Amino acid sequence: MAASSPISNTVYVGPFVHSNSLSTLEIQERGAIFVDSNGIICFVEKDIQEGGLPDLIQQKGDSWTDAKIVEITGTGFFFPGFIDTHVHAPQHPNTGLFGKTTLLDWLQKYTFPMESSFSKLPLAYRVYQNFVSRTLSHGTTTAAYYATIHVPATNALADICLARGQRALVGRVCMNSDLSPEYYRDSSTETSYADSKASINYIRSIDPKGEIVKPIITPRFAPSCTPDCLTAMGRLAKETDTHVQTHISENKGEIELVKELFPDSKSYADVYDTHGLLTDKTILAHAVHLTPEERKLVLQRKSKISHCPASNTAITSGCAPIRDLLDEGHTIGLGTDVSGGNSPSVLENVRQAIWVSRHLCLQTSKDRAKLSTEEALFLATKGGAAVVGMQDKVGGFEVGMEWDAQMISLGVVGEDGCRDGAFEEGPVDVFGWESWSDLVEKWVYSGDDRNTVAVWVKGRLVHRTGRFAGAERVATP
Amino acid sequence: MAASSPISNTVYVGPFVHSNSLSTLEIQERGAIFVDSNGIICFVEKDIQEGGLPDLIQQKGDSWTDAKIVEITGTGFFFPGFIDTHVHAPQHPNTGLFGKTTLLDWLQKYTFPMESSFSKLPLAYRVYQNFVSRTLSHGTTTAAYYATIHVPATNALADICLARGQRALVGRVCMNSDLSPEYYRDSSTETSYADSKASINYIRSIDPKGEIVKPIITPRFAPSCTPDCLTAMGRLAKETDTHVQTHISENKGEIELVKELFPDSKSYADVYDTHGLLTDKTILAHAVHLTPEERKLVLQRKSKISHCPASNTAITSGCAPIRDLLDEGHTIGLGTDVSGGNSPSVLENVRQAIWVSRHLCLQTSKDRAKLSTEEALFLATKGGAAVVGMQDKVGGFEVGMEWDAQMISLGVVGEDGCRDGAFEEGPVDVFGWESWSDLVEKWVYSGDDRNTVAVWVKGRLVHRTGRFAGAERVATP
Repeated sequence: MAASSPISNTVYVGPFVHSNSLSTLEIQERGAIFVDSNGIICFVEKDIQEGGLPDLIQQKGDSWTDAKIVEITGTGFFFPGFIDTHVHAPQHPNTGLFGKTTLLDWLQKYTFPMESSFSKLPLAYRVYQNFVSRTLSHGTTTAAYYATIHVPATNALADICLARGQRALVGRVCMNSDLSPEYYRDSSTETSYADSKASINYIRSIDPKGEIVKPIITPRFAPSCTPDCLTAMGRLAKETDTHVQTHISENKGEIELVKELFPDSKSYADVYDTHGLLTDKTILAHAVHLTPEERKLVLQRKSKISHCPASNTAITSGCAPIRDLLDEGHTIGLGTDVSGGNSPSVLENVRQAIWVSRHLCLQTSKDRAKLSTEEALFLATKGGAAVVGMQDKVGGFEVGMEWDAQMISLGVVGEDGCRDGAFEEGPVDVFGWESWSDLVEKWVYSGDDRNTVAVWVKGRLVHRTGRFAGAERVATP
Repeated sequence: MAASSPISNTVYVGPFVHSNSLSTLEIQERGAIFVDSNGIICFVEKDIQEGGLPDLIQQKGDSWTDAKIVEITGTGFFFPGFIDTHVHAPQHPNTGLFGKTTLLDWLQKYTFPMESSFSKLPLAYRVYQNFVSRTLSHGTTTAAYYATIHVPATNALADICLARGQRALVGRVCMNSDLSPEYYRDSSTETSYADSKASINYIRSIDPKGEIVKPIITPRFAPSCTPDCLTAMGRLAKETDTHVQTHISENKGEIELVKELFPDSKSYADVYDTHGLLTDKTILAHAVHLTPEERKLVLQRKSKISHCPASNTAITSGCAPIRDLLDEGHTIGLGTDVSGGNSPSVLENVRQAIWVSRHLCLQTSKDRAKLSTEEALFLATKGGAAVVGMQDKVGGFEVGMEWDAQMISLGVVGEDGCRDGAFEEGPVDVFGWESWSDLVEKWVYSGDDRNTVAVWVKGRLVHRTGRFAGAERVATP
């Protein structure tokens, strides 16, 4: 399996860009990052001199003298891998299909029929292999996946992530209430508990240290579960010390439904809290319409928020007040929420997060609502890392962290206006007069998967395109 | 020049999709469209029988027996070329650069410095060649271009469009007020008139019948022009019977500025009207905040509206009320508005038009505000054709119209989940169980330029990718 084959010490040479904080992006034009055979960043060197690399490598000792060199020679930079904090892998074939529906009818019309077909294991393999290829190609190095209710298909998704080397939290979806059609729900609370536990056990058996794949308990959302099922999931989370993911306050109709179904609860967030599901390992997707009291509760419980801007726009859910949530101290990452969201690309959701924040600004006349490019990139990397509980491991290029990264390559326009291979090189056109900050913005606002020419997780190359050819060499030939 | 080299009679065989009306899309699974050597559609055949093509060709007479055949063999369809009704070609190198600015500071910080550099003709050639390649690759067969104030560079853009075979309205930008910096404005009303007229004359000299390129009078927007300059442009429009394009009511600060600058005018629209610039050949970009009276006036004058959703979001201008404008009977197309908009792709603006309409729905709680996929595609094709005054020529596949089209190809996922060449084939994943309407939606919501494998204008192939190889053959080998 890719995740267990050996890798060699490697020095990544060239510009790199990552978030230093929510509002500041570090752009290092002449960097060298030393990554050992465990995928750990050992040294981060900045402002290296022209021709100074051999000496620098020499200084690091014998173990680096025959290291592999991966060097950026054209216009480009290394960037941390993206973290998708909320994505439904089985909905991939429905990408772009939603018509004018909103959450509750969208579930019935598009989602449940598709997900129920994952009882067929060959179909599940086909879709999941395809989707993991897709997310890797977009630079997603870590994903918090919802699977379906089916244990074999859920386990297959974990197998595929491990084999392909993509970091993942993989969750069997738990749903036993009659909101879901009879053909697609857990038959009882006992089944919910047993099947969720079976999948947790399987995922822990294939990656005992949870280095690449981990289980995550996944009650779909409150209306999908009976109260005793929610209780069982809370108990399972405690017994097995596992992450939890669910949806919260995405759509106004959904919020009304929760009020009806849980009349004794103070709020939607309170439903999860009273069932033991609001922990510091809980990822709450959407959080569009939370009340101030709910926001306080989520903060107290140290639960995390996954902002899914493309989805919230596509199925007309609303604009999550990200600035306010950030100001209050919430931990927030981005989620593509395929297929409520129409793109598996976190980069597209960086843009969409910015667009949604501008619509909020238009609605409220508060200029402060606008997210900057730097802030949106932070959410996509370090913010997401904190949401999935990996803030010490991934999201930035710091000594001791693991090398989860993508190589971004931008195409340069020739003197005659032509670009050989513009089609392959992707949509960004560099004219040569741009500042470094301009280059990053051009990538953010017009880049796509073609600009992600290589992707690594824990030091391992997990995706590459033809444009990566020639970037690798040995230090001392 | 591409635009004048001969083409042969050609039969386009395969599925085709186009708008029948604002709300209905015709999806023809087994079509054959006969296009003669003038690029005119002579016959549109539907529901053709398996193996029935040779007989069908025979029936059409001798001139078709040795016609070229362009056939879709994989999963895909012919679609009308896109019409970009508002785009600033010289701003292409600024794509993605806007920070948190809004219209008026964005102009000063990003736009005027870039546009002023088009006094250098080699730079203009480089950018324009590159940009026309880009827009063609996205399936844009007709564009209403703003150039800069420079006559030589503007003429160069027209030359390039003609040479590359892209239909275009090309406008020298007129701006003489002190809103613009001294280094980038017309020195006087006389210069505005003379330079605009010189460019009109040049463009009419290279394409006397206006078959591919036409001039368009382009007062930037009211605040950029003194009243007598606007009067001169109105006079020029009348004298030369030329199209007009300008901006209207994009941003609230801009509207206030117009009130200050034109205190005697009843409204922003009235400024244009009283200067003879509100004609049935006028394209008004944005129209985000028009008053009911202005909307009536625009309708009376039969002026057209270019909706620029990506731009209106990116620089936080607002949400144009497209549903209301459609209900009132306005003629509306889509504009990418590069680089206020962050993408030269009309397809991306189809999506963005839908997103903006959903934000309007969220703001107003009027579900009716939502644009459907069909409606947004209509705006991108037939709507745009009417905006540029070519509704009888392009925008759909009807006998007597010209063949401005793109071949859309979608990638099919293998049984094992893999796709050979997924990277080249683009972002749409077809699993094989999709309905035709699903396929179109998948393209709309997740497609990009990789799915546009060939583009024709007036029957001439003006763009192709490697994936087009093998689609062409001769009818009777």
